Amino acid sequence: MNVRLIDQALVEKCLTMPRAIELMRQAYADLTEGKVDSPLRTALVNEGGTVLYKPAYSSGAGIFCVKVVSVFADNVNRGLPVTPGIIVVNSSETGMPLAILEAGYLTSLRTGAATGIATEVLAPADATIGALFGTGGQSRHQLEAMLCARDFTKIYVFSRKQENAVRFCEENADIAGDCELVANPDRAVLKDCHVITAATTSPTAVFSDDEISDSVHINAIGSLGAERTEVSAETLLRSDVVVDQRAACLKEAGEICLMRDQGLIGDDYHPLEIGEIILGDQSTGERDRPTVFKSVGNAAQDLICSAEIYRYAEEHGLGAQAEL
Amino acid sequence: MNVRLIDQALVEKCLTMPRAIELMRQAYADLTEGKVDSPLRTALVNEGGTVLYKPAYSSGAGIFCVKVVSVFADNVNRGLPVTPGIIVVNSSETGMPLAILEAGYLTSLRTGAATGIATEVLAPADATIGALFGTGGQSRHQLEAMLCARDFTKIYVFSRKQENAVRFCEENADIAGDCELVANPDRAVLKDCHVITAATTSPTAVFSDDEISDSVHINAIGSLGAERTEVSAETLLRSDVVVDQRAACLKEAGEICLMRDQGLIGDDYHPLEIGEIILGDQSTGERDRPTVFKSVGNAAQDLICSAEIYRYAEEHGLGAQAEL
Repeated sequence: MNVRLIDQALVEKCLTMPRAIELMRQAYADLTEGKVDSPLRTALVNEGGTVLYKPAYSSGAGIFCVKVVSVFADNVNRGLPVTPGIIVVNSSETGMPLAILEAGYLTSLRTGAATGIATEVLAPADATIGALFGTGGQSRHQLEAMLCARDFTKIYVFSRKQENAVRFCEENADIAGDCELVANPDRAVLKDCHVITAATTSPTAVFSDDEISDSVHINAIGSLGAERTEVSAETLLRSDVVVDQRAACLKEAGEICLMRDQGLIGDDYHPLEIGEIILGDQSTGERDRPTVFKSVGNAAQDLICSAEIYRYAEEHGLGAQAEL
Repeated sequence: MNVRLIDQALVEKCLTMPRAIELMRQAYADLTEGKVDSPLRTALVNEGGTVLYKPAYSSGAGIFCVKVVSVFADNVNRGLPVTPGIIVVNSSETGMPLAILEAGYLTSLRTGAATGIATEVLAPADATIGALFGTGGQSRHQLEAMLCARDFTKIYVFSRKQENAVRFCEENADIAGDCELVANPDRAVLKDCHVITAATTSPTAVFSDDEISDSVHINAIGSLGAERTEVSAETLLRSDVVVDQRAACLKEAGEICLMRDQGLIGDDYHPLEIGEIILGDQSTGERDRPTVFKSVGNAAQDLICSAEIYRYAEEHGLGAQAEL
C-alpha cells in the first residue's frame, strides 16, 4: 500500500490562490446542488481539547477525504500549532488510501479562497478600497484572496495591537504589490471602504453600523461558534446576507444565532447561499445596502482542494511515497 | 509536524497475539464500563464501495485514533485488498498527529484476539479439540488465538473447497506446533469439539444444532451484517450468548437480528457482554449448554492496539518519520 505524503510546502506548491478561488466557485455550486456528501463531523473531546473528523465525498472530486483536525488551545504555550491537522485521501475507484496532506496551510488557503469567491461574486465591480480586520494566522491568505478578486489600490489593516498591524503590513507588502497597506488608520476611513473582511476571534462586532457605507461588501469568516459575531445585528438586518451553507450557518454562525436568540429574526430566516448566486438561481438586490458573506467552513472546500492537490502531486511525481 | 509511519511488517513486530489477547481483556472491560468514547462510524458510499471512518478515544489508551477502512468488493479482481485501511493516531495531550498505521493486519490480529479472549473466558478449561470454519484472510489469526487460549491437540479445519482446507492446514502448520490440523474431516467429529470458531462470510449457519455437543464454546466472528448468521437459531436459543457490545450486536449482528425478525426473541433480549464477565459482574450458567461469543467488532479494539503499537514503535525508534 503506497501513500503519497504531501507536506505543507508541497501543498503550497500544488495550489495557488487564483486556482483555489476557482475551486471554491465549484465547491459552493456543488454544495447548493446537493452534489457533496459531507456528513456531520464527529468530535472526540478530552480535558485538553477536541479532535474533529470531517469526511466528505463527491463524484466530481473523484476522491473521498477526511480532515482530522485538533483544537488544543494550550498548544500555543507549547510552541505547537493550536489546530494541527492532516487530510487522508482515498480513491473513489478502489477505496485505497492515496495520500496524506498537511491540513493547516490548506485550511487557511481555502478559507481565504472563500473570501475571494465571495468578493468576486458580491463586491462592487469597481472596488478599490478595502479593510481587513485581524492579523492572525489566516489573514495573509485573506489579503491575498481580496487582491485576487478586485484591483485594490489601498487596504486598511486593523488589529487590536498597533504593532501587529504594522508588522502585518510590512510582512505582506510582497503580495500587496501596488496596493498600499495602511496599519490601523483613523476609523473614519471605513466609510470609504468598498470591501471589509473580518478574520478575527472577536466575540462582538468589529465595526458599528454607522461606520460603514451603504454599498460595502463584508466578508465575515472568523469568530467561530454560535455565540460570537463579527458583524452587528444592525448591519446584518439591513444587508443582503449570503452564507456558504444555509443549514450549517443557521445552526453554527453566531451572526445568525445571536439575532435569533434576541428575537430579531424568526425561524423563517432564509439567507441566500452563495452557490445559489453562482448558479444564477438567485441574486442580491440593488447595491443600496451592504452585502454580508458569512462562512462557517465546509468539508466540501477541503475535498475539492485535496483532490486538486493530490492530482497535481501525482501528475508531477511530487511528494515522498510511504509504503504501509 | 512529524508523523511516524508504521507499515504492516512493523505492526506485526510491535504486537504479538498473546499481548493482543491481554489488550482485548482491557478493551472489553473498558467498553462495558463506558470508558471508551467510540461514536457511531460515518460511512461515505459511492457506486463502487464504501469508506468507513471509525474514531475512538479513551483516557486509558492515551491517544485518539480513527480507522479509515474501505470496502470495495471489486478490488479482488484488481489484485488489491478488498478492505484496505489505515489508522491515524493523535496525541491525547496535544492533539498532534503522531502516527499512521497500516490497518489490515491490525484488524485481523485484533479480531483473532477477540476470539482468543472469548475462548480464554468462556471455553472449557480442559478444551483440547477444536474446529475452525473458514480459511480466508483472517483465519490464520483465528487459529493462532485459539492456540494461545487453550492447549489444543487437534483442530479440524472446514472450508467449502477441499483445496482451501488442505492449503490452510499446510500453510499454518508453523504456528500449530504439536496441534494437529485436519482438513475437512467427516462432520461427525464436530460432536467432539470443545471449541468451534466460525470466521466465514456464510449467510446461514455453518453447522446445525444437532452436530455439536452440549458443552461446546462457539466463537462467531464472521458474517457481518444484520442478515447473515453463522450459528443457527436452535443453537443460539439454547446457549448462553455473550457479545462484545450489546447495543451494537442488537443492531448489527445477524445472529440476533434474524431471530428477532422471526419473532423467536423479543425486544427484551439481553445477551451478556464479555466485559461484564471479565469484570466479574456476570457469569454464564452451568456448562450443560453451549456458550456463543458473537462479535461485530468495535473501535475500542483498534484504539487499544494502536496505542500499544505506537508506543512500542516510539520507544524503540521504529518506523520512518514523515515530515508534513
